[in-house]
Parts: sequence; structure tokens; C-alpha cells
Amino acid sequence: MLRAIYYKSNGDLVTDITPESFPAALEDAQGIVWVDFSNEEPEPAETILIHTFGFHHLAVDDALHETHVPKVDDWEQYLYIAMHAISYTSGADDIDAIELDIFLGAHYIVTHHDAPIQALDRVWDICRQDVRYFKRGADHILYELTDGLIVDYMKVVEALDEEVENVENLVMGKPSSEAVQRIFTLKRITLHLRRVLSPLREVLNKLARDDYAVIDARDRVYFRDVYDHLVRLHDISESLRDLVGGVLDTYLSVINNRMNEIMKTLTLITTLFMPLSFLVGFFGMNYFFPTSQELLPWTGNISFIITMIVIMLTPVVMFTWMKRRKWM
Amino acid sequence: MLRAIYYKSNGDLVTDITPESFPAALEDAQGIVWVDFSNEEPEPAETILIHTFGFHHLAVDDALHETHVPKVDDWEQYLYIAMHAISYTSGADDIDAIELDIFLGAHYIVTHHDAPIQALDRVWDICRQDVRYFKRGADHILYELTDGLIVDYMKVVEALDEEVENVENLVMGKPSSEAVQRIFTLKRITLHLRRVLSPLREVLNKLARDDYAVIDARDRVYFRDVYDHLVRLHDISESLRDLVGGVLDTYLSVINNRMNEIMKTLTLITTLFMPLSFLVGFFGMNYFFPTSQELLPWTGNISFIITMIVIMLTPVVMFTWMKRRKWM
Amino acid sequence: MLRAIYYKSNGDLVTDITPESFPAALEDAQGIVWVDFSNEEPEPAETILIHTFGFHHLAVDDALHETHVPKVDDWEQYLYIAMHAISYTSGADDIDAIELDIFLGAHYIVTHHDAPIQALDRVWDICRQDVRYFKRGADHILYELTDGLIVDYMKVVEALDEEVENVENLVMGKPSSEAVQRIFTLKRITLHLRRVLSPLREVLNKLARDDYAVIDARDRVYFRDVYDHLVRLHDISESLRDLVGGVLDTYLSVINNRMNEIMKTLTLITTLFMPLSFLVGFFGMNYFFPTSQELLPWTGNISFIITMIVIMLTPVVMFTWMKRRKWM
Amino acid sequence: MLRAIYYKSNGDLVTDITPESFPAALEDAQGIVWVDFSNEEPEPAETILIHTFGFHHLAVDDALHETHVPKVDDWEQYLYIAMHAISYTSGADDIDAIELDIFLGAHYIVTHHDAPIQALDRVWDICRQDVRYFKRGADHILYELTDGLIVDYMKVVEALDEEVENVENLVMGKPSSEAVQRIFTLKRITLHLRRVLSPLREVLNKLARDDYAVIDARDRVYFRDVYDHLVRLHDISESLRDLVGGVLDTYLSVINNRMNEIMKTLTLITTLFMPLSFLVGFFGMNYFFPTSQELLPWTGNISFIITMIVIMLTPVVMFTWMKRRKWM
Amino acid sequence: MLRAIYYKSNGDLVTDITPESFPAALEDAQGIVWVDFSNEEPEPAETILIHTFGFHHLAVDDALHETHVPKVDDWEQYLYIAMHAISYTSGADDIDAIELDIFLGAHYIVTHHDAPIQALDRVWDICRQDVRYFKRGADHILYELTDGLIVDYMKVVEALDEEVENVENLVMGKPSSEAVQRIFTLKRITLHLRRVLSPLREVLNKLARDDYAVIDARDRVYFRDVYDHLVRLHDISESLRDLVGGVLDTYLSVINNRMNEIMKTLTLITTLFMPLSFLVGFFGMNYFFPTSQELLPWTGNISFIITMIVIMLTPVVMFTWMKRRKWM
Repeated sequence: MLRAIYYKSNGDLVTDITPESFPAALEDAQGIVWVDFSNEEPEPAETILIHTFGFHHLAVDDALHETHVPKVDDWEQYLYIAMHAISYTSGADDIDAIELDIFLGAHYIVTHHDAPIQALDRVWDICRQDVRYFKRGADHILYELTDGLIVDYMKVVEALDEEVENVENLVMGKPSSEAVQRIFTLKRITLHLRRVLSPLREVLNKLARDDYAVIDARDRVYFRDVYDHLVRLHDISESLRDLVGGVLDTYLSVINNRMNEIMKTLTLITTLFMPLSFLVGFFGMNYFFPTSQELLPWTGNISFIITMIVIMLTPVVMFTWMKRRKWM
Repeated sequence: MLRAIYYKSNGDLVTDITPESFPAALEDAQGIVWVDFSNEEPEPAETILIHTFGFHHLAVDDALHETHVPKVDDWEQYLYIAMHAISYTSGADDIDAIELDIFLGAHYIVTHHDAPIQALDRVWDICRQDVRYFKRGADHILYELTDGLIVDYMKVVEALDEEVENVENLVMGKPSSEAVQRIFTLKRITLHLRRVLSPLREVLNKLARDDYAVIDARDRVYFRDVYDHLVRLHDISESLRDLVGGVLDTYLSVINNRMNEIMKTLTLITTLFMPLSFLVGFFGMNYFFPTSQELLPWTGNISFIITMIVIMLTPVVMFTWMKRRKWM
Repeated sequence: MLRAIYYKSNGDLVTDITPESFPAALEDAQGIVWVDFSNEEPEPAETILIHTFGFHHLAVDDALHETHVPKVDDWEQYLYIAMHAISYTSGADDIDAIELDIFLGAHYIVTHHDAPIQALDRVWDICRQDVRYFKRGADHILYELTDGLIVDYMKVVEALDEEVENVENLVMGKPSSEAVQRIFTLKRITLHLRRVLSPLREVLNKLARDDYAVIDARDRVYFRDVYDHLVRLHDISESLRDLVGGVLDTYLSVINNRMNEIMKTLTLITTLFMPLSFLVGFFGMNYFFPTSQELLPWTGNISFIITMIVIMLTPVVMFTWMKRRKWM
Repeated sequence: MLRAIYYKSNGDLVTDITPESFPAALEDAQGIVWVDFSNEEPEPAETILIHTFGFHHLAVDDALHETHVPKVDDWEQYLYIAMHAISYTSGADDIDAIELDIFLGAHYIVTHHDAPIQALDRVWDICRQDVRYFKRGADHILYELTDGLIVDYMKVVEALDEEVENVENLVMGKPSSEAVQRIFTLKRITLHLRRVLSPLREVLNKLARDDYAVIDARDRVYFRDVYDHLVRLHDISESLRDLVGGVLDTYLSVINNRMNEIMKTLTLITTLFMPLSFLVGFFGMNYFFPTSQELLPWTGNISFIITMIVIMLTPVVMFTWMKRRKWM
Repeated sequence: MLRAIYYKSNGDLVTDITPESFPAALEDAQGIVWVDFSNEEPEPAETILIHTFGFHHLAVDDALHETHVPKVDDWEQYLYIAMHAISYTSGADDIDAIELDIFLGAHYIVTHHDAPIQALDRVWDICRQDVRYFKRGADHILYELTDGLIVDYMKVVEALDEEVENVENLVMGKPSSEAVQRIFTLKRITLHLRRVLSPLREVLNKLARDDYAVIDARDRVYFRDVYDHLVRLHDISESLRDLVGGVLDTYLSVINNRMNEIMKTLTLITTLFMPLSFLVGFFGMNYFFPTSQELLPWTGNISFIITMIVIMLTPVVMFTWMKRRKWM
């Protein structure tokens, strides 16, 4: 799907602009055009990006065909920025990362993504309704987009934080195999999160510090603000990693303690009864001889046969039981 | 709560100044104004900060609505500084960090925090009583504030140090599950402390080295002094981390040794009595036959029934006991 | 084997050029020569490289006799570049790395390798058929080569990724000794991969950033593109390393859990039956006396001898069995 | 205690100079004064340092009241240098670090420490006897002091090295709980040592590289020499850390191996005797009947009562024994 | 032992030059002198180095009395370079490092070492026979020396690599305590190797990059070549470290697996026989009464006494056996 907003130099907003009228719009040096390719086929997009906007084919390849870690490339007339929008559902196996490719020119911004991005849709809707967002320039729309993405990052981090706490309580109560699996999954997720956050922070740092033709020097302070948020997000994600590591250590120590308890009991029981068993074995206990005639049938033929059957069945049953538990 | 001190250019201290008279006070280029927002509603604070002081709305947002890692932003006419005041009660689950936002201008200092900060109150009280603190300029009040915060940091570090030592002695004596939990908590706390200390150190480093319009070059040496304290604090917190790690290793080695001891005993007992039990089992021990008539009742019917009941109850009791210990 | 393509300044392609005509071809300042030494003897290669091309004997030594981590040496008139082409078959013990030595001049490119490299052959075949590749200069052929190598890297990384996932599923189901061996092998492979990737990334970074006489400044953007791919590859290989580490941790936790289960069962059985055995041992169980005459032969001489034999054989059998399992 | 040496410009040494004559001595631009405060009360020292020498009160605070990691502060007319002198007795729980504060001016050196420092006393005694040391300037005395400190560092490192070797041999022979405690202590000590060494190395690096008004550029080579020693010391302390880590790993592997051995024996014994016990249990061993009349008293009443007492006492004894070993 | 070669400006080689003629030789600005102190007493060497060559006494101290990590000191008229020659015999406890101190002037090179260095002897012998080596200048002899050292480094690395592989195969087959000891030794050796390699690489990097008066700018490319070899050596030594770490992990996992197997067997045997033992204990097995008169002597007095002796000896024997295995 391709959609576009054209903010005319006279202050009008055109929301039904088609690719055919892009060239005219781009020539309006006072206007601003925002084109969004959402899950669009590569071929038509490629034509527009290369021929209408005149982007370098390497940059277009990056945007349409390839996956990248977040980065910013300066092509002088425009910037190519790759970012990731992330989302996370509690209990999921990984965070969901969607690549968002942005071309930022002096008077236009082009966004490309293969799946809908909530943050982008929010900014899009606001921009369609409120002309003021365009008045501050195309770079300000980029700021709104990054700011929106960060809000979603924060949600992800908070959801993870909550889940780690839950798993911790679970592990303290009853350390189960499932809890461990979850800890390992959370560990992997936090690692993934960190690998997305670090380069993104670097991108924002560049936008806030470096001198780009298409970013107004006075607007850099906005990107510095987003950068500060990312520094804090990175900080929290580091805490998360420590927390997950701590939960794992706790689990192992709980398991270890329990193992210790079990071995103690085993040793206790063995230590108490082994000498006793020797003693009673020694005497037979031939202090006694049988007195009760009523117990005679207990040693009859039928009883013997049943006993023999039980003796022969017990190992088979035990063996089968252990086999089912996958010990052999 | 909003409170303010106005040090007039003629040397008078006005402690009951209201927001309405801030603009007049700010125009007095020789005077110094200290405004403190303590747990104040964001809306009125925002009005004063943006319209009276003329701070950038991003900086005001940082101060009123958001949490940050310690940082210093240079807005030329003023600095925005975010710090954390920390406190810690022995045995608590985490250190208590309160964000302190500071705006430092050439002739004013504005502080904002959501909970009372002891160090700030101490400096406030001294400033109200002693006009000399204002004579050295607004940046010197910032120095007094940071110096006061560091004193509280040192208290926290000392409390932690003492607690780590206690836990270590505990673990050596009798390694318990609670001790391990406490070690993990202490580990997390030291990690948290380090994450607060590192950026704060960087902030002081910047104040001591960089050239800011609102900090007198001759006063930088004071911030270098605070910076040196933070270097030492960081050093101690690293030691703390090593100590906690060492306690954990000690715990594991103590547990391991004990496990080893237990297994040795189990093996010893088993090794001693198993061959003996075989021997006495082999002979029955049919060397003996019962001689004492007095023992006849021991093999009577009543005795048999009691024995059977005990035999049937024992597994049930044992099983229940283990179930209660959560082994099944 | 030595082979060469000579792109004449008039646009003709000569594919059967012999070493004798190299000097003439090299003098054609508009033409481009690509010479490829594939598994060629060092002596004749050395003669050509030193005397025909005039390379420094240290650089030729590097290319013909020695193994290097990827690097780029600037010899002003030409660049010496060492790279590695890698391939990997699922289940193999290591990735297969072939060193590719490249000399890049303004009008020629010389490649040297001791085993066939698929990526190079692909580019060779395309260049033989399509004159356009030469039109962009010798440095563009270098770009095509590096780009081709990267494609093979990606294949290796994908194969590894898949295998790690397989091993993970295996471990979850049934942790076996073979799976662990495979995890350790995969760990070593990812370490190897990382050690190849990091310096190669640095080589591309240099090609994309530094100012070399033989690389057209406008072509650097192509090397930046390859560099970005390498950044991503490095990122994925880091994920791989984390994944492998995670699988190992999972394995250990699964093993630990199982051990715990086994110990629980052992303790359970011991705890249930030890008191019972004592009880029945205590009474002998002399409640009963033998009644059935039919069982008399069970205690006859023959039975005794058989029993004695079994008693003496059992330890021997048990001992041999344990010996075979390598416990003694 | 305060003591001072005054090297007059005419080459005389005055060793009984009192604080009253410091101002006169300091005015002698060709002479050199060395004042040493050893475990002196802060108040009189503060007066002399601030009023006689004119040091900044922050620097004096650093010297008299506070503890710092090694550092060098440039106050232009003088340097403030904080160092640590260390000593170590084999078997001690930590290295003993004494802070040495030094003020170095163009014509004086002031040292301050709270406990006697052997290296300083050695240099002091030599300087009192040999006028040549003063001829090279105050900065050369600083060099002699640092060089002397380093000699003590080397002694500490050698003592630690020897002790680590002893503990290693101990662990190989018989892994005991005490050995582990010692390993952990040594680990902590090496960590402490490293934390003292790293900033000290940095101080010497600064003295060797930076341009200070009070250090003759030609004398920097001496500080570079001390710096090189510190590099080597740091290198050895890293080796020490690796060695200690290795001893710990060895200990754990020895313990693990022994555990394995014990478990093998337990399993061996159990595996050998369990089937035998079943067999002899099965037959009762009712192959035999008692024959010897002489053994009759063994099953008499007295014997029974003794047996019962032993049976009842055994668990109590076992339980008490385990309780004393702290298993319950 | 002191030996020297003097390459005269007229192309003659004098190999029997004595210290007395050094000053004359040094004045020959076109000639080159190589003096080698091999295991020479410090005093005469000191006299020559300080008075004949005019080296700074700190540099001479470094060379004659002290041990250093590899470094290069620029004394303008000459360089002082400290390196290590290493050798390693398979199975040895550590690599053997000999410090080689080199003074490099424009027209002389002085080497000093406390033990014979093979690489140096090789270069010495070649230089004595082949005048061409001197023609390229004193710095080229330094290159030949470093290049020779690197060859020995490579041999050490290869020997280590082979040994690690052997230990790995050993561990896979039968994990023994000796193998673990060897792994730990190899780990320490690789750590040592790395600590020698890293600063040496830095030394070569400086020689290849920095501008020294005594090294011809055109000869730097040779040191870059040696530097590249060191980069590769460092890379291989990192692989070695990973390999050793991997072997250790493998060992632990093999041990763990075996432990698991043993525990399984123990549990299996116990689980199978405990219920059976209870059963046969319950019935006594009083189904049978003795029938064979021939077995009567088995329960006679002599048999009883022997049994009693065995019963009393068994614990003593078992206890002694365990004591000898150092379990008590």
C-alpha cells in the first residue's frame, strides 16, 4: 500500500495525492511531502524511489530488499535511516522487530516498512489532522516518528520487566523446568533488545550531533531528547539483563539447596537404619519362635506362588516405570 | 510545595518571596534566586519554568515528567542537570533513588524533586541562615548541593559495606537459603549503585572540565573535588561488587564441601554395613535357636497385627512427610 | 592454474592472454587486466608478480607463502588485500576458510588462492560474458568479488543458525552426550566465524573510508554497502554465539533437573523401604513357620550349590559390567 | 610528628629547622625544603599548609582529612599527589595501604601520612646524609620516593606470588576448606592490589608525559622509568589473578573428581551387595538349622535386652552425631 | 660472553674486534657495529654501555638488571627495545621466556641477554658470513632479529596447538585427573603467551608506524610485515585460549554425564532390589525349613567363630581402605 500527504506551500493539506503528481509536489520548495510504503511490492516502489525521488540504487536496495542493523547514511541531498519498530506480547518467544526505512530530504520524508507500525500510524493520523506538524519541516516529522517508536520501546521494556519479576517469584516458590526455559527465553530476548537498542542509540546520537544538510541545526535538540530517552532505555535494559541473570543464579541456588536437603535426608535415613538392619540381621531375630497357629496359611503354597509372582513382577514394573521417565 | 530564597544585591535575604515577584528578582543582575519545587504539581511548575524563567519546553519536560540517568545539558543561558539523591536502610531490597533536577543560571538556581531530599534541605537551611553562601554565586550553591548528595552516597556505601561483611560471616557459620537470597539482593543493589554512580561521575567530570557560561572557571576546582570523591566512591562500589561476588563463591564452596562431607558419610556407612548385612543374611543367622519362653508373646497375634499396621502406615507417613517438604 | 582476462581500451575482451603478453597489456592505460592464480605453484607466480607487476617482495611473500588475518596494505601504486572465502557443510567440524589474496592496481586486479573459490568463479564467468563489469574500473571488480564473498558468508551463517536450532530442539527432548559435543563444536565454529568476520569488516571499513589512489572516491559507497552487510553479519554471528551459549546453559539445566529427579527417586525408595526392612528384619519374620512339604526340595543340596554359585558369580558379573562401562 | 630538612642554597643541610623558620626557607629560591608530617594532628598541619605554604584549602582537605585513589592535581605553583604505600605479611587478610599525600613545589616537597612509611624513611635517611640528592631538585626527591614505594610494591607482589604457589600445592595434595578460604582471600587481595596499582600507574604516566611547571622536563625520563616498573607490576599482578583463578578451578576440579570417585564406590558397593542380599534373604538362609548348644545363651533374655537397648540407642547416637556435624 | 662484528665502511667484516677498539669503530659513520652480550657479568657490560656507547644509565639499568614487558623507549640518538625470546618443550609447565635487550643506533646495534637465544645466534651466524645484511643498515639487522624471534614464537604456538589437540582426544576417551591438570597448565601457558605477545605486537606496531631517527622510513614496511605476523600469532593464540577453554568445558560435561550415568545405575539397582528385599524379608523366607543334614557343619562353632572374626574385620579393612584413599 502506498499513501502520501502533501503539505502545500499555501498551508493546504492534500491527502489523496497519487504517484503521478509526486514530481510536481517535489518541485514545490516550500511544501512538504510524506510518502509511506506499507507492505508494498518492491517493483513499483523501486521505480518511484529511483526515478521520481532520484535515490541511489544502493540506498533503495537497502530499503526494499535487505535487513540492516539501525544506521544512518548521509547521501547529502537526503539521509537514509534504518530503524526498528518493536513490539512484544507477554509470554512470547521473542520481541517482534519491524524494519522501518526512512529517506529524509529537505522537503520530503519517505517511509518504507513491510508490516504496519503502530507508532507510524499514530503520527500519520495526527499529521493528517494537524497542519502544524508540517510547519516545522520534514525533519520534525522524523523526530515525531522516532519519538513515537521510543514510546513503544518503553512499553516493551516495561512488559519484560514485569515478566521477569513474575518469573522470579515463581522460581522462589517452586523451581520448575518451565520456569528455567522461560528464564533462558527472557535472557535471549533482553540480548536481542540490547542489540537493537545500541545501534539505534548511535543513530540518534549522530542525528543529534552531526551536521546534516537536511536537518535544521536548531532541531538537533529534539533528537538529543530522543537520544537521552534511549540512553535511559539502554540503562533499563541493562538492569533487565542483570535481573534475568540474577533469577538464573537464584534458580540454581534454590535447586542446589534442595538437592542438598534431599541428600541429607537420604544419608540420614541410611545412617539410621543400616546399623539397625545389621543388628536385627545378626540375631535373625532368632529370639522368637512362631507361636500363632492362625498364621499357618500365610506360608502355604498359594501364598508362596503369589509371592514369587510379585517378586518377578516388581523388577519389570519398576523397570518399565523408570523407562517411561526416560532414565534408560 | 514551592519555596524560594532571594539574595538581594544589597546583601539582604528574602525568604518569603512569591512566584509573582520572581520576574523582578530575576532582573536584579547582582542578586541570586534559589527556587525549590518539592513534590509540586507539574502544571503550575511548568508555567513558572517556561514563562518566568524561559526554559526550553524539552528541558522542562525532562525535569517535570521524565526520569533520566544523571546528565548535564547545556542550554547556554542555563544548564539543566539531572542527578539522583540516594538513601538506603540496612536490610532494604534496593537503594532509594530520588531524581533531583537542577536549572542553573548565572543568577539563579532552580531545583525540582518529587520527594524531600535531606542533603538539599540541609543546604537550604544553611543558606537561609548564612548570607555568605550566596556571595560566591549560584554555581557555588550547586557545588554545595552536589557535595551534600555525595555525603549521602558515602553513607549508603558504608551501610552496604557493613551489611556485606555481616552476610559473609553468616555464610561462613551456617549457609542458609536466606543468606543466599540476601547475597543476590546485595548484588543487585551494588549493580544499581554502580549504574547511578557512573553517569553522575561523568556529570561532575563535565562540570569540572568543560567551559560553561554559568560556571565561573575558578569554581571548577570545587567540582573537581566532588569528582574525585565520586571516583573514590566508584572505586569502593567496585570493591563492594567484588566482595559480594566473593561471598557468593564462598557460599557455593561451603555448600559444596558440606555436600561432599555428606556423600562421604553416606558412602562410608553403606560401605561398612552392606558386606556385614550380606554376611549375617547368609547365615540367617541360623547359628541360634530361640530359647527364652518369655519372649513368646512377641510373636503372638496381637503383635502381628500391630506390626502389619506399622508396616502399612510407615510408607504413608514417609510419603506425606516428603510431600510436605515439596519433593514430589 | 593461471588464467587472465584482458579488457582492451577499445572494448574488446581477450580471454586467452598468456603471461608473455601481460607487460604489453599493463601498458594499456585504458584497458583492464584480471589475472587469477588458482592453486598455482609459488615459483612461476612469484616471477610474474615481482617482475611483471613489480610488487614488493614482502607483499608477494604475504600472498604466496603465508596465512594472514584479513588486512589491507597500501603500497601506493597498488593495494594488497587478504580476505577469506568461507564455506560450511552442515555437521562439519569447522568452517572451511580459503585465503584470497588480491592485488588491486589502477588498471589491473590480481587474485591468488590455493583452492577454487565459488564466489570468485561466479564473478569471473560474469566478467567474461559481460564487458560492462570492466567499464566501471578494476576497483568495481574488487567490489563484485567482496560482494560475492559476503553472499557465501551469509549462507554459512544461515546454515549455522539452522543447525543451532536443531541442536536446541534435540537437547530439550533428550540431552545426549553427542548433542553436547555438537554444541561445543558449534561454539568453536561461531568463535572462528567471528575471528574471520571482525578483521574483514575492518578491511571493508578501510576501503569505504580511507583515501586510496587505486579506488575511485565515488566507488567507496559500494564498499560501504558491503561494509553494512558485514556489520549485520557480525550482529547475526553475535546472536549465534548467544544462542549456542543459551543451548549449553539449557543442556546443563536439563541435566541438572534430571539429576535432581533421579536423586529424589532414590531417596524416596530408600526412605520408604529402609524402615520396613528393619521392621521385617526385627521379627525375622518369625511369626511364621514353614508348612508346605512340597517346598522341601528348595532347600536341598542341589539348590544350595546353585545358590552358592550364583552368589559367587554375581559380583564377578557386576564388576565386569561396570568395568566395561569404564567406571573402574 | 613534624620534621623538616632544609638544603640551603650554599649547600648546607639544616635538619633541625622548625615551622617558624619555614617562611624564610621558602623564600630562598635556590634552597630546597622537605617537610614531612607523620601521623601529625590535622589542626597544626592545616595552619602550616594553608598559611605558610599557601596551598588551596581543597588540596589541604584532600591531604589531611580524606582518602583518595592515587591521583595528581595540578595547582600550577605546586602539584598535589596522592599515592599509597603498601605492605603485606604472608597470611594476612589484606594488603596494608597507607595514603601518602605529597605537595611538590619548585623548591620544596611536603609529605603527609598517618602511619610511618618505610620507603619514605629510607629516602629521608639517605637525604639527611647525602647532599647530592637535593642538588637535583625537589622533583628528584619525588622520584626517589616513588621509586622507593615501588620497591615495596614488588616485595608485596613477590610475597603474594609465593603464597599462591603454596596454596596451589596444598590444594593438589589435600583440598581442604581452609585452603579455599585462603584462595578467596588471595583473590580479594589481588583485586585490591590491582585497584591500587592501576591509578598509581596512571599518576606516573602523567608525571612522565605531561608538562608540569614544577617538574623539570629532563627529569620526566625518571618517572617514565618508574612507570615502566609499574607496567610490569601490573602485568605480574594480572598473572597473579590468573594464577589464583587457576587454583580455584583446580580446587573445584579436584573436589569434583573426588566426589565422582566416592559416588563410584558407593554405586559399586551397592551394586555388588544388593543382589546378594536379596538372594540370601530369599532363602532365609534356611538351608541351615542351628546345631551348636553352646550358642544358646546368645538368644537368652539378657542378650535380648542388651540388643533392644542397642537398637534404641543407635538412632539417638547417630542423630546426635549428625547434629553435631550441623546437618540438621 | 661479549662478542662483536664490525662491518667497515670499505665492506670488510671484522669479527674479532675487542671492546678497546669500539670507540674507533663507532666513529666510522659508514660502518656498522653489532655487539652482543650473552650472559655477561653486569659490571663490565655497564662500563661499556655507559662510557663507550654513552647510553643513559636508566636505559642500561633496564637492560642489565631488570625485567620488563616488551617495550620501546626512544632516546633520540638510539632506541632501547626490550623483547622476549620464547621456547617451549611439549609437556613443559610453562613457556621459557628470555629477555632480549636491544640498543639500536644509526650505526650500531647492541644486544644483551642472560641466556643463549637461538634466533639471535642464527642471525649472528648469517651476518658473519654474508656482508649484504650489513649493507642495509643497523635497523635491518633489528628486523632480521625480530623476524627470527617470530619464527620461534610460531613454533611455540604450533607445539601448543598440537598438545591441546592431544589433551582434547585424551579427555574425550577417558577423563582423568592428570588430563585436567594438563588443561589448567595449558590454560596458564596460553595466558602467559598472550601477555608476552600483546606488548610485543605493540612494540612492532610502534616500529612500523612511528618516526624514529635511527630507523629508515623505507624500512618501516619490514616491521609492518613482522607486525602482521604478530597480529596473526595473537589471533592463533586467542584460538588456542578458546580451544583450551573448550576442552575444559568438554571435560566437565563428560564428567557430569558420567556422574549422571552412575547415579542412574545406583538408583536403578536400589529401586529394583529394595522392594524385593522387603518382600523376602517379610516372609523370612519361612516357606522353607532346612532339609539337608550335610549342611549341619556350616552352623557349627568353628564356622561361627570365623564369621564373627570376618564381621569384626570387615569394617576395619573397609575403613583402612577408605583412609588410604584419603576420604577421612
